[in-house]
Amino acid sequence: MPVGTQGTVKAVPQDTLESLGAEIILGNTYHLYLRPGHEPIRRMGGLHRFISWPRAMLTDSGGFQVFSLSQLRKVTDDGVQFRSHLDGSSHSFTPEHSIDVQIALGADICMALDECTEYPADRRRAEESLRLTMAWAKRSLTHFRAHRDEVPWRDRCESHQEQGASQHDQGVPHPSSSWVGSLSSHASHDRTQSLFGIVQGGMYADLRRQCAERLVEMDFDGYAIGGLSVGEPRELTLEMISEVLPLLPKDKPRYVMGVGYPDEIEQYARMGVDMMDCVLPTRAARHALLFTSVGRVNIKNKQYSEDQNPPDPACNCPVCRRYSRAYLRHLVQAGEPLAATLNSIHNLAFYLGIMQRVRASFESERWSLAEP
Amino acid sequence: MPVGTQGTVKAVPQDTLESLGAEIILGNTYHLYLRPGHEPIRRMGGLHRFISWPRAMLTDSGGFQVFSLSQLRKVTDDGVQFRSHLDGSSHSFTPEHSIDVQIALGADICMALDECTEYPADRRRAEESLRLTMAWAKRSLTHFRAHRDEVPWRDRCESHQEQGASQHDQGVPHPSSSWVGSLSSHASHDRTQSLFGIVQGGMYADLRRQCAERLVEMDFDGYAIGGLSVGEPRELTLEMISEVLPLLPKDKPRYVMGVGYPDEIEQYARMGVDMMDCVLPTRAARHALLFTSVGRVNIKNKQYSEDQNPPDPACNCPVCRRYSRAYLRHLVQAGEPLAATLNSIHNLAFYLGIMQRVRASFESERWSLAEP
Repeated sequence: MPVGTQGTVKAVPQDTLESLGAEIILGNTYHLYLRPGHEPIRRMGGLHRFISWPRAMLTDSGGFQVFSLSQLRKVTDDGVQFRSHLDGSSHSFTPEHSIDVQIALGADICMALDECTEYPADRRRAEESLRLTMAWAKRSLTHFRAHRDEVPWRDRCESHQEQGASQHDQGVPHPSSSWVGSLSSHASHDRTQSLFGIVQGGMYADLRRQCAERLVEMDFDGYAIGGLSVGEPRELTLEMISEVLPLLPKDKPRYVMGVGYPDEIEQYARMGVDMMDCVLPTRAARHALLFTSVGRVNIKNKQYSEDQNPPDPACNCPVCRRYSRAYLRHLVQAGEPLAATLNSIHNLAFYLGIMQRVRASFESERWSLAEP
Repeated sequence: MPVGTQGTVKAVPQDTLESLGAEIILGNTYHLYLRPGHEPIRRMGGLHRFISWPRAMLTDSGGFQVFSLSQLRKVTDDGVQFRSHLDGSSHSFTPEHSIDVQIALGADICMALDECTEYPADRRRAEESLRLTMAWAKRSLTHFRAHRDEVPWRDRCESHQEQGASQHDQGVPHPSSSWVGSLSSHASHDRTQSLFGIVQGGMYADLRRQCAERLVEMDFDGYAIGGLSVGEPRELTLEMISEVLPLLPKDKPRYVMGVGYPDEIEQYARMGVDMMDCVLPTRAARHALLFTSVGRVNIKNKQYSEDQNPPDPACNCPVCRRYSRAYLRHLVQAGEPLAATLNSIHNLAFYLGIMQRVRASFESERWSLAEP
């Protein structure tokens, strides 16, 4: 999932994301809550319509950014109080409030508020953090089940299909035929949002397993593994995923949050992870770092100043089909905004291409198994 | 002509420009000479190929930016010495050197080096400035005629058509079927670059007329009217154009440089001006100012925070078809790079739309004249 923090995947227009094959993007609840605010977005029909993105969306709980961006945060059993990084104003997220905000935003998938356990954390700290996450998961689910009908596009869905309305009189249609649609129908008889629980537990395998089992008992619509890629060695990330994944139901989405490098996402996808998100492809792009089939390319380097090859000779993305390394380097050197756009398009194409190849290889395995 | 100062129309990808119907864009010789340099661009086959723009291009002489951007400039009969605004390094442009640089860049249309007379300028100053411009025009033309065969795509043109080569093995094809192509064949038996002379003369109608007549005698491929929109009242701009335009041959392009607002470009086009360039649509866009059928819209204004109408209700551009005012306002408020991209796309579509409507009305006039 490309990350669209403030309701935009930075520097990339929505139609380009569509043509790259992005089926789902992520919005950050913390940012959208602060600006433009969830109430305006609710009044405008939800995030899909506000940003004109008819495909699937996921919003996080806001917790991660509260912990990483805000000032003077204070965590209690009830929730987390914090000051905005924009203007210092005071706010709080409880599990219920995070759900309310996410229902107002109306993404297809909401996430339960959790505490992302820092690394390293001793066992006692990890246990205490997990206790909070579990209590919040339960409260999130209860609140979500009571209010999921309040999503702003709930009524618009049916009316849209009858009226064939356009963006400006009825809003972007809510996706109905995607796998996210089938997700929702799994969870309830009417199509609405889905809620995922998040497995925490630090780097303690038994805590992770215990958390996964209890979340599965609660019957979320999907499950995420959080608190990874927080500074731990890669082997530990892998170990935690390996411990948790078998405990999560195969017929529901399994999502590893905040990963990763190209080789990581391929490895996790092959292990059975269905969803991942990471700012890396777009953030690296804005710093002139391209991921390519021949490794990482820092396109700022002088060696590319007259290199007329495409950024990635094996890539068929719109950037690699049209532009040279020399041109991308020039755009970076000249401080041109097109640099961020073109570099981001390539990196997203590279990441989405990895997942497309993994899916294709799963498909061909399925076919070869089906042969007589 | 959208302005692509550093080899990019700021924040707008080339394929978007194509789909908006931009037939020609402008590159700034001063900027490209300093970075990445005309020699690298020559070695890479010229500007079309370097920036992957197969349609027409025009480069200015570099003079205007030397006068407006560089430091410590010194003008003599020979040319102008200046220090780079980037690093303070010393450079000079003579008429011959400007032509050499523009031949290396290889745009379809080159401009003779001129001195853009400041406003206000007394008659003596305007006469002296015009004397310089006229001497430079003659030297530019002589040098251009002697060296126009050295354009980097000269050989590639023919070979391209035979081989049907792609961007990465042969370079972007040079435009051959456009009106720019016919321009060149008018000027010489083989297709190559064209050179335009620039009418100066301050705000003195007789100096302007005298300049135009002498330039026409020199037989340039096209003619520009420069030194307008430099702070003078609009009536004076209009008067100068009215004085000069009838003296310029109708069968060659007539170009007014550096204008203007939407109503201006329509007015001048209806007077017979064939070409104009201006940074206004893209620069205003980056400052959140949209040109629309209902006037100027400062999309940053709070009144648009929940306005779900398209930026311009009468516009059919990709931005107005997809996004709301509220979303564009949010992008600006949030400092998102997509704001510059979407605002620029709309403003360029608005400007190009004006010219398309003017052309269509000329067409229909022609048809109605042809009726029995």
